[in-house]
Amino acid sequence: GPSHAKTKYETNNVTGVVTGLAWTRVGGDILFVECSTNKGKGKLTLTGNLGDVMKESAVIALEYIKANAHHISLEDTDFENLDFHIHVPEGATPKDGPSAGVTMLTALASKLTGRKVKKYLAMTGEITLRGQVLPVGGIKEKILAAKRANIKEIILSEKNQKDVEDINPKYLEGLKFHYVKEMIEVLDIALV
Amino acid sequence: GPSHAKTKYETNNVTGVVTGLAWTRVGGDILFVECSTNKGKGKLTLTGNLGDVMKESAVIALEYIKANAHHISLEDTDFENLDFHIHVPEGATPKDGPSAGVTMLTALASKLTGRKVKKYLAMTGEITLRGQVLPVGGIKEKILAAKRANIKEIILSEKNQKDVEDINPKYLEGLKFHYVKEMIEVLDIALV
Amino acid sequence: GPSHAKTKYETNNVTGVVTGLAWTRVGGDILFVECSTNKGKGKLTLTGNLGDVMKESAVIALEYIKANAHHISLEDTDFENLDFHIHVPEGATPKDGPSAGVTMLTALASKLTGRKVKKYLAMTGEITLRGQVLPVGGIKEKILAAKRANIKEIILSEKNQKDVEDINPKYLEGLKFHYVKEMIEVLDIALV
Amino acid sequence: GPSHAKTKYETNNVTGVVTGLAWTRVGGDILFVECSTNKGKGKLTLTGNLGDVMKESAVIALEYIKANAHHISLEDTDFENLDFHIHVPEGATPKDGPSAGVTMLTALASKLTGRKVKKYLAMTGEITLRGQVLPVGGIKEKILAAKRANIKEIILSEKNQKDVEDINPKYLEGLKFHYVKEMIEVLDIALV
Amino acid sequence: GPSHAKTKYETNNVTGVVTGLAWTRVGGDILFVECSTNKGKGKLTLTGNLGDVMKESAVIALEYIKANAHHISLEDTDFENLDFHIHVPEGATPKDGPSAGVTMLTALASKLTGRKVKKYLAMTGEITLRGQVLPVGGIKEKILAAKRANIKEIILSEKNQKDVEDINPKYLEGLKFHYVKEMIEVLDIALV
Amino acid sequence: GPSHAKTKYETNNVTGVVTGLAWTRVGGDILFVECSTNKGKGKLTLTGNLGDVMKESAVIALEYIKANAHHISLEDTDFENLDFHIHVPEGATPKDGPSAGVTMLTALASKLTGRKVKKYLAMTGEITLRGQVLPVGGIKEKILAAKRANIKEIILSEKNQKDVEDINPKYLEGLKFHYVKEMIEVLDIALV
Ligand SMILES: [Ca+2]
Ligand SMILES: [Ca+2]
Ligand SMILES: [Ca+2]
Ligand SMILES: [Ca+2]
Ligand SMILES: [Ca+2]
Ligand SMILES: [Ca+2]
Ligand SMILES: [Ca+2]
Ligand SMILES: [Ca+2]
Ligand SMILES: [Ca+2]
Ligand SMILES: [Ca+2]
Ligand SMILES: [Ca+2]
Ligand SMILES: [Ca+2]
Repeated sequence: GPSHAKTKYETNNVTGVVTGLAWTRVGGDILFVECSTNKGKGKLTLTGNLGDVMKESAVIALEYIKANAHHISLEDTDFENLDFHIHVPEGATPKDGPSAGVTMLTALASKLTGRKVKKYLAMTGEITLRGQVLPVGGIKEKILAAKRANIKEIILSEKNQKDVEDINPKYLEGLKFHYVKEMIEVLDIALV
Repeated sequence: GPSHAKTKYETNNVTGVVTGLAWTRVGGDILFVECSTNKGKGKLTLTGNLGDVMKESAVIALEYIKANAHHISLEDTDFENLDFHIHVPEGATPKDGPSAGVTMLTALASKLTGRKVKKYLAMTGEITLRGQVLPVGGIKEKILAAKRANIKEIILSEKNQKDVEDINPKYLEGLKFHYVKEMIEVLDIALV
Repeated sequence: GPSHAKTKYETNNVTGVVTGLAWTRVGGDILFVECSTNKGKGKLTLTGNLGDVMKESAVIALEYIKANAHHISLEDTDFENLDFHIHVPEGATPKDGPSAGVTMLTALASKLTGRKVKKYLAMTGEITLRGQVLPVGGIKEKILAAKRANIKEIILSEKNQKDVEDINPKYLEGLKFHYVKEMIEVLDIALV
Repeated sequence: GPSHAKTKYETNNVTGVVTGLAWTRVGGDILFVECSTNKGKGKLTLTGNLGDVMKESAVIALEYIKANAHHISLEDTDFENLDFHIHVPEGATPKDGPSAGVTMLTALASKLTGRKVKKYLAMTGEITLRGQVLPVGGIKEKILAAKRANIKEIILSEKNQKDVEDINPKYLEGLKFHYVKEMIEVLDIALV
Repeated sequence: GPSHAKTKYETNNVTGVVTGLAWTRVGGDILFVECSTNKGKGKLTLTGNLGDVMKESAVIALEYIKANAHHISLEDTDFENLDFHIHVPEGATPKDGPSAGVTMLTALASKLTGRKVKKYLAMTGEITLRGQVLPVGGIKEKILAAKRANIKEIILSEKNQKDVEDINPKYLEGLKFHYVKEMIEVLDIALV
Repeated sequence: GPSHAKTKYETNNVTGVVTGLAWTRVGGDILFVECSTNKGKGKLTLTGNLGDVMKESAVIALEYIKANAHHISLEDTDFENLDFHIHVPEGATPKDGPSAGVTMLTALASKLTGRKVKKYLAMTGEITLRGQVLPVGGIKEKILAAKRANIKEIILSEKNQKDVEDINPKYLEGLKFHYVKEMIEVLDIALV
């Protein structure tokens, strides 16, 4: 069935779409976080069969962007008159955990700023309200999945660097890693 | 009882009604997605004993139409002052999964544009917020059900083409397939 | 106890009250659907220990009436400033399933148009948003219950005609059947 | 503990308090339904550890009073700017079932009209939206409890008359029964 | 751990704090009910790990105070523009039952009138919407806990007097009891 | 995996971030409470996989600050036009209990006053609506975790002093303890 198939990277040649890395019972995979906005009243809609922790990541991402709008040239955005929608295909697969935080943050920021996302880039990391990127689990599986999907660059928390260094280097060939501490660094690297 | 009876195709000679393909424990079947709109406040009502994943498909479909209104000549539609209702008979049968996404999208678009849907056409496919049509499961069972119900044309994700090619050709006689990548292609084919 | 007693038909000499047919573990029975309206904000209240599928029938009925108001001379009704209440006695008995759809539709239409319902008439059938009447189960048990309760005429989906023809004719004596395809036919027959 | 103690009748020398009859696992008992109103927005608050069916009775009672305000001289009541609260002591005891319907109706009507309730009167019966009083169970246990509590008159559905006639007359001494068909009869008997 | 420690009475030298008596699996204890108000829209917030029945007591207390504002010199209070918060420490201990009703009533009334609560006073009793104080369970355990906590006076329902008289008098030395019938008596005794 | 890793203290060189002490099945740990505010309507959003009791602590903290705004120079803050967000990383770890009360209070107060929090300071304690700091459990485990994380000062309830005195002094070297009774003392010590 389609629900266990490994996803292939596709050029996200639009704003609001970012490639994340997931770690499930059947191994690592890439996933896409999609964001759209419409005229509205500040409502955040979340779809894609997301668990509570993953939904919280989206809430944190939007809250951070609102509180730090001036850092990403969004100080003139009228957040109260927009609705936000974040979707993570594929709907048949339940998804949870905090590791899509950076991906959701980047999708929202891309959509709101109108800036596209760097090609062949994927990311994984928990976010916090004060702007940190925290380490996440399943790094080895996620990296193998990224290679299979033709990813070239990966953004990780600096606290996941030791997990990468434990991996046999032959699996890392052709991959460039960005280790970050702050969420603002993610946006600097990802948005072109 | 009526709940296990196979549904027959009926000419949907009205706007807002689209034929989908379902795959349940008792095999494939066709289903109808019905859409109506009324003066309101942007509320989306979903009936027909739908599971959470299927409800999310409707949310994505409406969100996509709002964000891409100009692509389907709906730029003058006042979405905020309409209520939307999507119903999937039959109420006694629980339904779930993402595969009715294209069907819901087309029902909403048909109702809102006032364009009827091509006769003897059915469809199945997951939709995403950025406009893609993703592959779904149960293709063989769905196609057999479509033939029994007198369907002539079927829209599928291009990624389901391999599933069709695995089917013995004698079961495909008299059926025309449309393989699509984008949601906008579905509307181009389906709305007359 | 009173909860297993079979209900008797009573002249519904008021608007907004319609006789339906129910099929439960303890056999067939008639039931009454009662509707009242008050000045309000468009809210629909449902009581009578109703399951989710039965509640959805009421939502579909109201939505259909709003979208087709001009077909039943309700084009001047200010639906947004009315509250609607549908109750199905008896509260101690849980009720579910889609077969009260036509009964709920007729109760709402009777209350809103001020037209009473034909005497000694009962009905059972699922409704859809586009206006169809779908077949339901338990036809034999429902018909026996209707006879016991002194019902003279019954409205059914045309797709339930075969179920009636399977019944020994001696049980059908004194009963007149109306087989319908569309919801509008139900209202034509039922409202006097 | 206090939760199994039998309640004694107390003169309800205020408006909005009505004596009902309950039937639980530990036998019959009387209960009080208390109603208060405050300036508000039409909200109905229900307390006293009430189950869903019992809550529905309160909703039906209020809806009936609103729709029939002119029958009980409440046509000038501004229901939309009042909040309603119905409480059934004792909070430690879960309560459910439709039989408090007439009691809730009378409590609301007493509070809203300012008319007190006849002394030494109790009642039990399900209500419907069109104004009927339906029979309820546990009649024998309820009557014995009423006698113990010093009740002198009891209102019942006319369809519970047969249940009273099955009781040994010695248990009925000193009790006067009112058998009613319509909810308006209850209010005529109960409100002084 | 702290959750099983017995609480000591502390002078509640502020308005809105009242000492109650609790009865749990590990015996009797005193508890504090704290109330604060802020500018708002009439919302009642309840914290302290409270069960549904205990939450209902707070709803009844507030409703009673609103409906009887003139009896406690609150006729000029603008209830619709205040928010109310009742908290019962300690959050780790689940609490339920109706016996904190009088305590919640007194805390709200103290905060709203600005009158402090008599020192070394505790209370326990269920409240009803019409203003009665009903008896509660665990009287012996509650009284022993009150003594341990240095309480000098206790308010109880007059229907709990028999429970006090069953206790060996040596346990009652130094305690003064107030037996009340009406909620207004509680406020007369408690508010200084 | 990252979820069992012990957290290290990091200089919270921003407002709205406070270090707390947690006690879980796998021992003691430090945690961070992060607070942000945005233009809004008084809504409080809580993320970080928090249980009901921990969420209640945040509600109490905000309520206390609103009711005592003048004590911390916030009398001009327009609470009704702000939204509040409290987050406790790490999202994969469920968290509950009342002991983060002082930490949440301090995070909110720091954000709203713009005052930073003293460096190398951690705290643990339940809060109440009237302003007390109550003792909490797991003191030994929390203190060991604080030392490991390089904490230098700890705020505790005065009722936890005995728990500290039971610990072998060699584990307390280099730690300074602040024993407090009132929430306002916490803010005096913590906000620089
Ligand atoms: Ca995949
Ligand atoms: Ca991920
Ligand atoms: Ca079917
Ligand atoms: Ca389908
Ligand atoms: Ca019946
Ligand atoms: Ca029926
Ligand atoms: Ca009782
Ligand atoms: Ca009763
Ligand atoms: Ca205690
Ligand atoms: Ca108590
Ligand atoms: Ca940690
Ligand atoms: Ca803590």
